[in-house]
Amino acid sequence: MSRSYRIDEIAAALGAEAAGALDLEVTAAAEPGDAGLGDLALAMSPNYADALGAGRARAAILWPGADWEALGLEAAIFAPRPRMAMSGLTRMLDPGQGFAPGIHPSAVIDPSAILGGDVSIGPLTVVGAGARIGDGSVIGPHCHVGCDAVLGDGAYLREMVSIGARAEIGARFIALPGARVGSDGFSFVTPEVSGAENARKSLGDQGDAKAQAWVRIHSLGNVCIGDDVEIGANSTIDNGTIRATRIGSGSKLDNLVHVGHNTRVGRDCLLCGQVGVSGSVEIGNSVVLGGQTGVVDNIFIGDGVIAGGGTKILSNVPAGRVVMGYPAVKMETHTEIYKAQRRLPRLLRSVAALQKAVSKTGASD
Amino acid sequence: MSRSYRIDEIAAALGAEAAGALDLEVTAAAEPGDAGLGDLALAMSPNYADALGAGRARAAILWPGADWEALGLEAAIFAPRPRMAMSGLTRMLDPGQGFAPGIHPSAVIDPSAILGGDVSIGPLTVVGAGARIGDGSVIGPHCHVGCDAVLGDGAYLREMVSIGARAEIGARFIALPGARVGSDGFSFVTPEVSGAENARKSLGDQGDAKAQAWVRIHSLGNVCIGDDVEIGANSTIDNGTIRATRIGSGSKLDNLVHVGHNTRVGRDCLLCGQVGVSGSVEIGNSVVLGGQTGVVDNIFIGDGVIAGGGTKILSNVPAGRVVMGYPAVKMETHTEIYKAQRRLPRLLRSVAALQKAVSKTGASD
Amino acid sequence: MSRSYRIDEIAAALGAEAAGALDLEVTAAAEPGDAGLGDLALAMSPNYADALGAGRARAAILWPGADWEALGLEAAIFAPRPRMAMSGLTRMLDPGQGFAPGIHPSAVIDPSAILGGDVSIGPLTVVGAGARIGDGSVIGPHCHVGCDAVLGDGAYLREMVSIGARAEIGARFIALPGARVGSDGFSFVTPEVSGAENARKSLGDQGDAKAQAWVRIHSLGNVCIGDDVEIGANSTIDNGTIRATRIGSGSKLDNLVHVGHNTRVGRDCLLCGQVGVSGSVEIGNSVVLGGQTGVVDNIFIGDGVIAGGGTKILSNVPAGRVVMGYPAVKMETHTEIYKAQRRLPRLLRSVAALQKAVSKTGASD
Repeated sequence: MSRSYRIDEIAAALGAEAAGALDLEVTAAAEPGDAGLGDLALAMSPNYADALGAGRARAAILWPGADWEALGLEAAIFAPRPRMAMSGLTRMLDPGQGFAPGIHPSAVIDPSAILGGDVSIGPLTVVGAGARIGDGSVIGPHCHVGCDAVLGDGAYLREMVSIGARAEIGARFIALPGARVGSDGFSFVTPEVSGAENARKSLGDQGDAKAQAWVRIHSLGNVCIGDDVEIGANSTIDNGTIRATRIGSGSKLDNLVHVGHNTRVGRDCLLCGQVGVSGSVEIGNSVVLGGQTGVVDNIFIGDGVIAGGGTKILSNVPAGRVVMGYPAVKMETHTEIYKAQRRLPRLLRSVAALQKAVSKTGASD
Repeated sequence: MSRSYRIDEIAAALGAEAAGALDLEVTAAAEPGDAGLGDLALAMSPNYADALGAGRARAAILWPGADWEALGLEAAIFAPRPRMAMSGLTRMLDPGQGFAPGIHPSAVIDPSAILGGDVSIGPLTVVGAGARIGDGSVIGPHCHVGCDAVLGDGAYLREMVSIGARAEIGARFIALPGARVGSDGFSFVTPEVSGAENARKSLGDQGDAKAQAWVRIHSLGNVCIGDDVEIGANSTIDNGTIRATRIGSGSKLDNLVHVGHNTRVGRDCLLCGQVGVSGSVEIGNSVVLGGQTGVVDNIFIGDGVIAGGGTKILSNVPAGRVVMGYPAVKMETHTEIYKAQRRLPRLLRSVAALQKAVSKTGASD
Repeated sequence: MSRSYRIDEIAAALGAEAAGALDLEVTAAAEPGDAGLGDLALAMSPNYADALGAGRARAAILWPGADWEALGLEAAIFAPRPRMAMSGLTRMLDPGQGFAPGIHPSAVIDPSAILGGDVSIGPLTVVGAGARIGDGSVIGPHCHVGCDAVLGDGAYLREMVSIGARAEIGARFIALPGARVGSDGFSFVTPEVSGAENARKSLGDQGDAKAQAWVRIHSLGNVCIGDDVEIGANSTIDNGTIRATRIGSGSKLDNLVHVGHNTRVGRDCLLCGQVGVSGSVEIGNSVVLGGQTGVVDNIFIGDGVIAGGGTKILSNVPAGRVVMGYPAVKMETHTEIYKAQRRLPRLLRSVAALQKAVSKTGASD
């Protein structure tokens, strides 16, 4: 974090307007109230005006039209879409994890693995036979890249990531600590029809199936991941059974997310923390699944679907729908049901009163 | 995957009938539409007939009675129970992770550990003092086998698995990347009665308990696991407090599953992705818990219970029951409640209309 | 577990009364029915009286007032608050993981890292540049302590824990296998307003936002953790964006818990298994979140709030409230709604009958 940046340099990187002492230098970003003399305060809405006064920043990123001089600043950058400005700024100022360049001598790299130019491999990392790692990739400490796995250019793996054998991953892949790509699918079968199979077909009746042992179906498929994908800490993506499990380009998975075997996630999806997607699910493009959303197996979720936090999706969802609840329903239906539920106890009392009243009139049979 | 298999060899392994060129050789399995000349297409229901035509397979596994010649094939295997055939076939064709045989020189193995015959230990794996690993086991890279832990014959650990001290594990154990056996139980107590204790007893009232610090209860028990158990990626099984936490033979846990301290899971259970079982739960045999099911502590779940995805089990469930919902109710009750819920807003309007109508007749008090 | 303890030594450590042969020695604790001659049986309520007879223990911890001689014991300790006694006893008898003292030669420790007195570092652990580890800490095998991270005195890290760069952690920190401190926050933005943003504002309407790629917001903040904090196996705590993500002193997180970027958890909180807290949440002191509870972003949860298992908290919760359900409501409301729901199908039939009856009287419009 010791590097410093000029105000005009930051503004140019963000494609933003700036004013005041454009050659002023800052070394870090800070919340307005915490900012020191060398910090760039982030005050992108008028709500932060007071906090700016409490801090000591000489420069800030401000909302469009802010009167930076009246706010006591020497320089300002103006951000019409604050979070986009945050993106550029944080990329610029990110000090990273301090992973050293080069190949650490304690790494165990199979001689048949092919490393691109300018690849760094952290201490105690294992790279298997036939694995290929693209140019400019940073493989952190304690990672495992399996046999014949392929990582595109510019991969960035934090510590303790594992990539299973034969995984195929595009460019600019990011994996956070403990992410697992290419675990085996959870797929078992009983020699004869099981109670669980009966219950699914009949929606609740196990029939007379007897208890049986589970026999494993191995995963012969791999995981295929597009470009610009990010996988969160301790998330898991299973291999497909015959075909690949797929994550489309531009999709981002948060921490502790599970994606089952054979599932295909489209492009530019967001799967938030602890989302669980079963096997053989087809998820379209630009789908957003809120935290702890669950998806049963063998269904589809259309393009642009948005699920609120905690939603349990038990059947197909057409494109463009916003859903919530357990089981998932349209957001507006969910809100209506929720309101009605809160009135339920009162409703029961009303109906009891009505029954009594109607019975008095002798109207009931 | 370079080995090839004759059609009659595969049929014999599956105990299935075959027809046509029984000496034809295949090297891999494929979906019908993706299959190349050297692949065995998997087309176990008539739904795949068209896709077979689109692919180039010369041999396929087909549904019983299929006219393989009319489908343009040179050889066919017939599968009366398709997923059982998948089990045999995928076991046969599984190329594995390519873990090398033998003990990798970078592994750190305590001299007092006892390794069975034909054991392989991957690079950078740690085996603690007094640990015992059964014959024919494959311990992947970056694993940790704690002090005095016992693994039965034929164990297979993918990369980065940790087995805590004193764990006792039966034969043919499979653990996927990042699985944790023998983490410490989550058990804390306050010096005096806490608000949470009061709220549990009164179903909602914290009483006048004051804020207190939590004091740790250590886990002296271990984890005991039967034969033929599989634990998914990044799943966690806690040690018991005094007695063991137990997973019965034949049970399979998916990814990101949590099993709390003292809990006993019976034989042949399936715990699907992200299931969470609290401490001191008694789970019977042949229980299936759908993805993201949660189970509160100190209850029992009888033999053969099946819980749908997302179920939150808050009280005892008798044997054989199929449940769903939050809180869990019988599947048929859940369906009935769900349908009624969707009619709730309309119901509210109906009751309002009735009230108005009855009030007109002067019938109400 | 070979060390033995005298009855009076244990009683003194627990601050408890004892009776009988105070010099009797025990080596382990056991459930009453399983106890051998050298075990201390744990029989803290009269429910265990029969089991005591079935086991072979000569000494036990009993409920206050128990007639130890009639129970056939030679010595007894009396525990007025059983779980507090369990805490002291299990701490005393915990055999630990057997991690060896000293610095293992296979550990990769940057020369600029500063280790306190009496620190042990397990095999194959990496300690980054500028990291500081407090006196008496035990860092297990396969751990990663990032650059400039600070661990207070008496830290205890099980195997495969990762601590990100610049994390600041107080005294007596405990981290279980696979815990991740300092993963990157899940924070993305689209160049223009997205459908998800529209849907949140309108509670369900995506508007006419077009599909766009997600741009990353990097995490410049770190994780700050107080004293006496414990983080469970495979749990994840993300770095803050600009400010720190904070976990207050005395708070305990169970396994597979997720805490998002910028969130602040207060003092003495319990986050049970698989709890997920989104970003920028403010959680007060002494909050207890039951297993699988989810919390949406940018809300607050007041001091002393208790959430039952599976609760989805979608809006602010005032201090002291006990909540449950999806969405979270007061526990008593949840119970009332739940009872009413089960009566819903019957209610629908009653209202239909009423409609018919009222229609007969000619009362309806």
